[in-house]
Amino acid sequence: MNQKKEVGEKAVEYVKDGMVVGLGTGSTVFFTISKLGELVKQGLSIKGIPTSIQTEQLANQLGIPLVSFTEINQIDIAIDGADEVSADLDLIKGGGGALLREKIIAKAAKTFIVVADSHKLVNKLGSFPLPVEVVPFGVEMTTKYILELGGAPKLRQKNGSPYLTDNGNYILDCHIQPIIHPEELERDLNMIPGIVDNGLFVGMADYIITMNEDKEIDIKIKKR
Amino acid sequence: MNQKKEVGEKAVEYVKDGMVVGLGTGSTVFFTISKLGELVKQGLSIKGIPTSIQTEQLANQLGIPLVSFTEINQIDIAIDGADEVSADLDLIKGGGGALLREKIIAKAAKTFIVVADSHKLVNKLGSFPLPVEVVPFGVEMTTKYILELGGAPKLRQKNGSPYLTDNGNYILDCHIQPIIHPEELERDLNMIPGIVDNGLFVGMADYIITMNEDKEIDIKIKKR
Repeated sequence: MNQKKEVGEKAVEYVKDGMVVGLGTGSTVFFTISKLGELVKQGLSIKGIPTSIQTEQLANQLGIPLVSFTEINQIDIAIDGADEVSADLDLIKGGGGALLREKIIAKAAKTFIVVADSHKLVNKLGSFPLPVEVVPFGVEMTTKYILELGGAPKLRQKNGSPYLTDNGNYILDCHIQPIIHPEELERDLNMIPGIVDNGLFVGMADYIITMNEDKEIDIKIKKR
Repeated sequence: MNQKKEVGEKAVEYVKDGMVVGLGTGSTVFFTISKLGELVKQGLSIKGIPTSIQTEQLANQLGIPLVSFTEINQIDIAIDGADEVSADLDLIKGGGGALLREKIIAKAAKTFIVVADSHKLVNKLGSFPLPVEVVPFGVEMTTKYILELGGAPKLRQKNGSPYLTDNGNYILDCHIQPIIHPEELERDLNMIPGIVDNGLFVGMADYIITMNEDKEIDIKIKKR
């Protein structure tokens, strides 16, 4: 049994004809998007809005029609993965490097659904290093400020050079463990000039689709 | 008498031999940088760190040695202009489009000095539209969120296309008048995904060098 496939495919049940759908990035939502591709071939009419160039290419291959923000007024539903999901349903995202576009789309969506295999569930966030997107200019100072906040930032590399996001920025992967007050940390990080955004998604997820210990689909719903 | 020249040149008195100096961008600090160029020719030894490509070129022409963040541990002093200075010494900056690099350098400096002719002094900020730097992706949503905060954002244009910052982002010029709680607004704006930073500099200026009604140099000092 492939947990990622089961939870990923489960999410398509929330997608209805005519919806504008935010399409996340990663190995679990890959199965959501693949399933949506099948349903589109069978006649489902949706418009997708991708969170990364990688997902844009996947959707194009599958024949899912795409739109940009210029063509829509709102996103009905966004579906994405996560690197960690806390007991409070807060998230760490950005392991794949697409955190900013993912956050823009999650915030713009009326309903935000997270698909996550059971290994992503934690009590408190922070075992997974928090990705922070920063402008290249002054990254030395930004690194210093994150150290002062108690984090241990490491510049993400790719093929021997700094990794670049779709927005042309760097990623600092920050070990801050455990994250006791995610809302406060999210705000403190965003107030540092040079930080574009960070991978903490606090209070954003409406549903978490995951699997319980008995290997059954488990849907967690945000407390209002 | 040229007010910009007088206040701009006054600031060089704070620059001492051996200092690392953040060099701002704009029509008033132009006179500071020009004067520093003269002093360097006369033997003053400083290292400059520029807030824009424009200032980098000016400093090169004047023979001011430049460094980048990789070569220094801290900035001793940063000198920059402002578009508005409030009675509380808070600022609106970014009319020239360099707000993010200016904010990074102002925060990194032990002492931050603002040079501003008397026309820049206001009681409450907000007559000058607040520049907000945003990533191009999702700018339609970012615009909507700023409208919800009570602002009237307008995408800055240059030669018929969106203006691009040195960091490859857009600027939204936002009429939000008057700005009663600048600290709160700065935070609320920075929490919107898609907003990189904004032109509110709250509690950052240590000295404001300006001119009073009698056309005398007037130095305002931050209350501690």
